[in-house]
Amino acid sequence: MSEERTKLVVAGARGRMGSETVKMIARTPEFELVGVVDHKYEGENIGDLLNLSSIDAKVYTDIEQCFSSVKPDVLIDFTHPEIGKQHLQAAIDYGIKTVIGTSGFTSEEVETFKKQMDEKQLGGIIAPNFAIGAVLLMKFSSMAAKYFPDIEIIEMHHDQKKDAPSGTAVKTAELVQTNREQKHQGHPEEKELIPGARGAEFDGMRIHSVRLPGLIAHQEVLLGGDGELLTLRHDSMNRQSFMTGVAYSVRTVMTLNTLIYGLENILD
Amino acid sequence: MSEERTKLVVAGARGRMGSETVKMIARTPEFELVGVVDHKYEGENIGDLLNLSSIDAKVYTDIEQCFSSVKPDVLIDFTHPEIGKQHLQAAIDYGIKTVIGTSGFTSEEVETFKKQMDEKQLGGIIAPNFAIGAVLLMKFSSMAAKYFPDIEIIEMHHDQKKDAPSGTAVKTAELVQTNREQKHQGHPEEKELIPGARGAEFDGMRIHSVRLPGLIAHQEVLLGGDGELLTLRHDSMNRQSFMTGVAYSVRTVMTLNTLIYGLENILD
Amino acid sequence: MSEERTKLVVAGARGRMGSETVKMIARTPEFELVGVVDHKYEGENIGDLLNLSSIDAKVYTDIEQCFSSVKPDVLIDFTHPEIGKQHLQAAIDYGIKTVIGTSGFTSEEVETFKKQMDEKQLGGIIAPNFAIGAVLLMKFSSMAAKYFPDIEIIEMHHDQKKDAPSGTAVKTAELVQTNREQKHQGHPEEKELIPGARGAEFDGMRIHSVRLPGLIAHQEVLLGGDGELLTLRHDSMNRQSFMTGVAYSVRTVMTLNTLIYGLENILD
Amino acid sequence: MSEERTKLVVAGARGRMGSETVKMIARTPEFELVGVVDHKYEGENIGDLLNLSSIDAKVYTDIEQCFSSVKPDVLIDFTHPEIGKQHLQAAIDYGIKTVIGTSGFTSEEVETFKKQMDEKQLGGIIAPNFAIGAVLLMKFSSMAAKYFPDIEIIEMHHDQKKDAPSGTAVKTAELVQTNREQKHQGHPEEKELIPGARGAEFDGMRIHSVRLPGLIAHQEVLLGGDGELLTLRHDSMNRQSFMTGVAYSVRTVMTLNTLIYGLENILD
Repeated sequence: MSEERTKLVVAGARGRMGSETVKMIARTPEFELVGVVDHKYEGENIGDLLNLSSIDAKVYTDIEQCFSSVKPDVLIDFTHPEIGKQHLQAAIDYGIKTVIGTSGFTSEEVETFKKQMDEKQLGGIIAPNFAIGAVLLMKFSSMAAKYFPDIEIIEMHHDQKKDAPSGTAVKTAELVQTNREQKHQGHPEEKELIPGARGAEFDGMRIHSVRLPGLIAHQEVLLGGDGELLTLRHDSMNRQSFMTGVAYSVRTVMTLNTLIYGLENILD
Repeated sequence: MSEERTKLVVAGARGRMGSETVKMIARTPEFELVGVVDHKYEGENIGDLLNLSSIDAKVYTDIEQCFSSVKPDVLIDFTHPEIGKQHLQAAIDYGIKTVIGTSGFTSEEVETFKKQMDEKQLGGIIAPNFAIGAVLLMKFSSMAAKYFPDIEIIEMHHDQKKDAPSGTAVKTAELVQTNREQKHQGHPEEKELIPGARGAEFDGMRIHSVRLPGLIAHQEVLLGGDGELLTLRHDSMNRQSFMTGVAYSVRTVMTLNTLIYGLENILD
Repeated sequence: MSEERTKLVVAGARGRMGSETVKMIARTPEFELVGVVDHKYEGENIGDLLNLSSIDAKVYTDIEQCFSSVKPDVLIDFTHPEIGKQHLQAAIDYGIKTVIGTSGFTSEEVETFKKQMDEKQLGGIIAPNFAIGAVLLMKFSSMAAKYFPDIEIIEMHHDQKKDAPSGTAVKTAELVQTNREQKHQGHPEEKELIPGARGAEFDGMRIHSVRLPGLIAHQEVLLGGDGELLTLRHDSMNRQSFMTGVAYSVRTVMTLNTLIYGLENILD
Repeated sequence: MSEERTKLVVAGARGRMGSETVKMIARTPEFELVGVVDHKYEGENIGDLLNLSSIDAKVYTDIEQCFSSVKPDVLIDFTHPEIGKQHLQAAIDYGIKTVIGTSGFTSEEVETFKKQMDEKQLGGIIAPNFAIGAVLLMKFSSMAAKYFPDIEIIEMHHDQKKDAPSGTAVKTAELVQTNREQKHQGHPEEKELIPGARGAEFDGMRIHSVRLPGLIAHQEVLLGGDGELLTLRHDSMNRQSFMTGVAYSVRTVMTLNTLIYGLENILD
């Protein structure tokens, strides 16, 4: 029954993440798009603007007017750092739950918003990254590191990526480090016949960065023990990969009464 | 310092698991082999019997005499079901912690032993399987199933294995099932042009069994979401793969004051 | 120098394969797009029609007029079966080399076109499939089957695919079969505890079909021997994957003086 | 029928490769072990010495006496460089075909032996490496490099290995190089945030060396093209992995009438 669906407003609906979110809502029966917030196109239909005939929701340039007109359950925001903060404040004022995908929040800002939301018993999530698979990969790697302290990371991306290792690989290594007995891996008399063969060293572990056309975004964590190997791998094929995390966040904020920062903190 | 090493007795030291355990002890500085229990070879050196010059420990045919002579911290038992139970009782009587690798315990027997050990505040583990990597694979698969309910398992073994799917694959599927929303995977109009192409069905999931010479024992769990894939894999190369679990169990019983059944229940 | 670039005309430039071809030409320095053939948009710029500012080439609705105006080296055709044949005939009449990507040619038609082209010493390729990686995978699998007759194929696709196994998997198995000693794989007393576990049987080999959201189009051929395993894998991420084959075909027809059918017949 | 089996003599039968060869012969119906050559144990049964009850063949300390007594079709030699050369000469003198697995032959020595064998129309193979899967991996990588010049190699070994990259990885890269257009891979402005992340550079390609307990000997060659990836992998699990190559060599020398150096030169 349509009255039981979760009513959603998306801000930044014409952007990359925003438009994927609109499509995700359209294919999820329990969700309903009741409006979008944009700095232009007042009154137009976002379905027309995005060339998606299955979508029908009005554009509002004033977020407060949007809230009072369509009374959503949750605001999903994929705008820009400063705008995101203003939108979050407006949502709190109107008692609307939030899923915020913009970055740039300082710890103090998060704390200030959290206080307001705790008082109102209002659920919300701020997450710079909604890739649920990538977050699980980091979590499992860290858990397994307790038993298998010998770890190497192979991250693989298209050859248009400039930095090596990837940010995710370094973040994975940092998280693993908190749960791994400190050790310098490999043979003590190990010798690189060609420099770089053994990869980048991070706290005794090794990170290898592969760059090839045809690759998208992949990460493999190998954990070795006597006579056995545990391999954890995540393949991110396209931007749709963030939508499992966005949908899960919407469902979660419906049951929360505080603000949580980071997708990893709502996964169990 | 040698007085801080954990003193171990191994029963069944000439068997497959037992002799691997003796070797593991020999290469682990914190462990010390102080004796072995066997039904023959009284008084001989197990190092000579196993052709391992680095090992020097006496064989006892009477477990009580062994306990009173060498006063071990922990008994590791890889004998046979009935013998294992007698050894466990003897260890409880002498206040010695235990790592029992034999199978065949009924729930009632476990409960009876547990009561005695709780009274004595004595730590012990009974585990039919010490493959820590395999146990982690099941655990992570089950955790991830909450977010990625679309799951297929590919298990791969040498072509001397008769049963398909493997016991571990079925156990993994059962564990996953407890944490996964029920769904029938694949296209609703899916069609097998050759029967069996889509594998074995288990509660809507699919299990595929590969059998080839050259393979040893491998399992891959694939979890798919929109635009992303999470792959968890375990490769077991040889019997040494159980030693990480045996060593971890020894360390854990030193800190326990009850009996625990199943390796999964001491992993966190 | 621009006079040395290969001059190309694309027919069907607004279709899926055609528009990828136009983009590939734009990023390949040795190629030059000198015109496109379409059934409408006479005189317009295909760059404008495809929203690609880096491209500037005129649309012709009459292929003969196109040929006489821009004098291309090669026609690349991604139209429809009947149109493709007419275009091929026109190209032969004008002495223009051809890369034809439409299907539906009978052996007799191929033979008739080949005779004309042999007389004119004119190079051309007709290929229903330009996935060079997939063709190499089949070729290598077949070569290796001579030494490793124990083979299993795992093909993995998104869960919108209805048929299992995939056409490519069956074609791979057929090609492998020609080079493999006949044998029924697995243990003679093998038993499926759940039907389908061992996959689809094809001439004693096994094919497994995985279907999950997040997957695109992947195929793995595993060849096992005593103590070793050879794994050949192809991942096709998107339609761009055909462009390596189209570009290679263009380069090859420049050196040919006959008509060849099938990409596999110009790879060595 | 037993008179149709190929009669084999093994020299060095108590060594690692030699004893695997004896076991392989025992399980191959078309082969028959008729004697072994050793520097001691004259007259004893090699089956007893190796603790293999299924084997029954006499030890000879004099190779000429062995040849004249048992008249083998083929000598398989896994002794030492100098002994191997003497044995090869003896085999030529007696008109016996040869599979030689010792190293240390100079090109001149190979040439001299080849001349003698050509005169006698005698088949023989000298191969420092019988890993047929590894040889195929190199061959296929080189063939594919023509179409996919963007290549990275990941080789993975146990952490007791000192040198990185492995000899096989370097040899693979050298072979690939002969068939690959010279190019420097990766983004022109690529930056290593931690040194070594991008691995060892070899002629513009990259080689990554992973070292972990639990690993045995594995190599993966990744070839990337627009929108697709071709991955070729070899896993060597144990010494048995050489036996496919030894058996294939025996079958091949039975049809040869010259000396060939290198397993790759008898594969097609």
